[in-house]
Amino acid sequence: MDYKKVDEKDVEYLRTLVDADRILVGDEISEDYSHDELGTVANYPEVLMRVLSTEEVSAIMKYAYEQNIPVVVRGSGTGLVGACVPIYGGIMLETTLMNNILELDTENLTVTVEPGVLLMELSKFVEENDLFYPPDPGEKSATIAGNISTNAGGMRAVKYGVTRDYVRGLTVVMPNGEVLELGGKIVKNSSGYSLKDLVIGSEGTLCVITKAVLKLLPLPKKTLSLLVPFDTFTEAAAVVPKIIKSKAIPTAIEFMERQTILFAEDFLGKKFPDTKSNAYILLTFDGNTKEQVEAEYEVVADLCLSEGAKDVYIVDTDERKDSVWSARGAFLEAIKASTTEMDECDVVVPRNRVAEFINYTHDLEKELNIRIPSFGHAGDGNLHLYICRDELGEKEWEEMLDTAMDKLYAKSLEFDGLVSGEHGIGYAKRKYLFNDYGEYEMGLMDGIKHAFDPKNILNPKKVCQM
Amino acid sequence: MDYKKVDEKDVEYLRTLVDADRILVGDEISEDYSHDELGTVANYPEVLMRVLSTEEVSAIMKYAYEQNIPVVVRGSGTGLVGACVPIYGGIMLETTLMNNILELDTENLTVTVEPGVLLMELSKFVEENDLFYPPDPGEKSATIAGNISTNAGGMRAVKYGVTRDYVRGLTVVMPNGEVLELGGKIVKNSSGYSLKDLVIGSEGTLCVITKAVLKLLPLPKKTLSLLVPFDTFTEAAAVVPKIIKSKAIPTAIEFMERQTILFAEDFLGKKFPDTKSNAYILLTFDGNTKEQVEAEYEVVADLCLSEGAKDVYIVDTDERKDSVWSARGAFLEAIKASTTEMDECDVVVPRNRVAEFINYTHDLEKELNIRIPSFGHAGDGNLHLYICRDELGEKEWEEMLDTAMDKLYAKSLEFDGLVSGEHGIGYAKRKYLFNDYGEYEMGLMDGIKHAFDPKNILNPKKVCQM
Repeated sequence: MDYKKVDEKDVEYLRTLVDADRILVGDEISEDYSHDELGTVANYPEVLMRVLSTEEVSAIMKYAYEQNIPVVVRGSGTGLVGACVPIYGGIMLETTLMNNILELDTENLTVTVEPGVLLMELSKFVEENDLFYPPDPGEKSATIAGNISTNAGGMRAVKYGVTRDYVRGLTVVMPNGEVLELGGKIVKNSSGYSLKDLVIGSEGTLCVITKAVLKLLPLPKKTLSLLVPFDTFTEAAAVVPKIIKSKAIPTAIEFMERQTILFAEDFLGKKFPDTKSNAYILLTFDGNTKEQVEAEYEVVADLCLSEGAKDVYIVDTDERKDSVWSARGAFLEAIKASTTEMDECDVVVPRNRVAEFINYTHDLEKELNIRIPSFGHAGDGNLHLYICRDELGEKEWEEMLDTAMDKLYAKSLEFDGLVSGEHGIGYAKRKYLFNDYGEYEMGLMDGIKHAFDPKNILNPKKVCQM
Repeated sequence: MDYKKVDEKDVEYLRTLVDADRILVGDEISEDYSHDELGTVANYPEVLMRVLSTEEVSAIMKYAYEQNIPVVVRGSGTGLVGACVPIYGGIMLETTLMNNILELDTENLTVTVEPGVLLMELSKFVEENDLFYPPDPGEKSATIAGNISTNAGGMRAVKYGVTRDYVRGLTVVMPNGEVLELGGKIVKNSSGYSLKDLVIGSEGTLCVITKAVLKLLPLPKKTLSLLVPFDTFTEAAAVVPKIIKSKAIPTAIEFMERQTILFAEDFLGKKFPDTKSNAYILLTFDGNTKEQVEAEYEVVADLCLSEGAKDVYIVDTDERKDSVWSARGAFLEAIKASTTEMDECDVVVPRNRVAEFINYTHDLEKELNIRIPSFGHAGDGNLHLYICRDELGEKEWEEMLDTAMDKLYAKSLEFDGLVSGEHGIGYAKRKYLFNDYGEYEMGLMDGIKHAFDPKNILNPKKVCQM
């Protein structure tokens, strides 16, 4: 692409738009800003601007648009597919200083937030007000705008749906600096194409989110988890569609294999309640009364036992809750610590195909002689698989990774799955999206991108741009 | 627009694509197909084709695209804004013969349907299987693809959300005949721009929906309604945000005024349980046990009484249920029968502005000396207002309608509302959408339309095209 390189005149102008301590140039920019959490692709921005307001973002975009300078937005950088990496340099807008919770509206059950509010800050705030923001991605230090940009799902999607279902309104800055309000506090909307829903999951390629109105629910008064061990993963996964069929609706159904739990024990130096079995499912239930929650989990516990569960542990003491949930929260880091380098596959399949898919990864481990530890969301079919480099040399690893990824994504298509459940496409997964959608559908997406961003200055070479 | 008129050669070719009894030309086409339910705009298609399959739709679109013939899709024609009226003639695709329920998947809790399945058929089928499709628009003879095309909301949006929240996957035919699968049975999706969500609510302008995978829930075992009379509409509407604030989540909160109820009594020849008060709210609760439902409605009943309700009627006998819900179902028809002609305003406002908005319509009735009966969804801020012509002459009526609509939509913007909650923009409401969004945002939508439909042959002059 033929973008303008940032020169001294540009920097001089950009310095007039923000305070001196919120603009960094060239070598002043830390290495952290050149990659995301997984770091499979890296490049530095030429200028880093830590923005504070919609007005600042608008002024910067207007200038970048006029000058043809590429712009990438970054929140906490917790992504795994390189979506926030500035492939062509240019300006990086960093949003973590825009971290104010602006309004809690208890009559409309909405909270209005700036884009850089962290997920953990948001859930703490609303829960202190006896309210509930259901989306619950594992990475609690992600920003809310990052979550919106990938349509993050998290653990509670089984019962409550994904981020998309909780975004009522967005304030966005378009690539040319124009500010739009999409949606609002309103519950229903049939007023033209849903630009808001197009922006959700668009990974910072269509516009810059500078404010979000989120839907809240009353906080359920009771929650309880069950940890259920099985001899084999096949048995553990097979019970999930049966739970759904029984018409129980757990809040979450996670799966974990013994090896992943052992990594987490090592990583945290903390014991898990049980590690004797090969596979586990972790279920959560919520409701407003003890009776309601009990009625639901008893049906599910009985069902699990009749389907081969070795036991059912009720996770009710603080100690047990901590040991189970801290392990669950540490899986990604623990697997990362177990190897030299890794890449992730975030496929989503219909939930009655999870067992087949995970068994396929075990076959693939043997076939290719590699490790593919995994964990994920059995209840909604979203699996997180990690292909580990371990002791492979550079060239061997690259070939192996290619082969393994190709096979995993091909298998997900065979099961009517999709490339990404919640981590997005970014830079790293474009090839697999292309393999799934083909030229026509990728071109359609690029046509939409062109309608939003005719000069292609906002996060170019991402998602649908090959 | 410069479209090709359908000639004999075109008809000859089109006859090769469907059975002889499923294609009608010129005078063979009944007047019904020239307008929708409200009939504010009318024009005939040149050819009417009653399609049976994705393959037929694809073959027809391919031909129309090559020949530059406009195409409009129509379901049951229950719309109110002229979205299914073929402004430029051309081909009308009628989908009501594609009315098969294709698959019930109890392991993934989805139902797969053809586009012409009627809402009442769908809900009957899933409820017979002890499952639940929550969206509940008043017009039960609408097709499911019509509901998807307007993102219909209905009464249960307070607790369960709108049609968008229940569409997991769509099969669509693009204007050039290409067939795409958007989404699927999967629960989570972060695989590129959400074309599925863009198609939902796009009123047949982007592509033709030929199949839908819908999310289901377990059927709640208990439901119960309360009818609550108030002296004034202000009191009735003011209690709604307080109910939400109390953290009760009714399934539905509808409002109705005395005069509308009297129209329905007249229209149906059937008595409503109570007509002594000026304003009523009708609440529904659901859950899996009697205790759960009772616990919730008792809190709300007490709250209503402490906020000025004259009484609380429990709608539990079959007779009372029938009298209340048949009246609620007949409001649109009853108001229509009370006047010579009418037009509708389907605004949506934050739910704590409903009282102010309805009071404004009463002021406007006095100011303009017209009737604006209304009913609607107090719980989600979506109001259906009917401007009645009554005895006005043609010119007076047109002027009056313009003035009243301008004022109503301007007021909704003042309250951070939007033009349409669930009935869409179609042909009739484009002006008001433009007034709200302005040139830039309308142009952005038209840019999206162009990406989908570069020759602009699918339902032109609708939604964002002025």
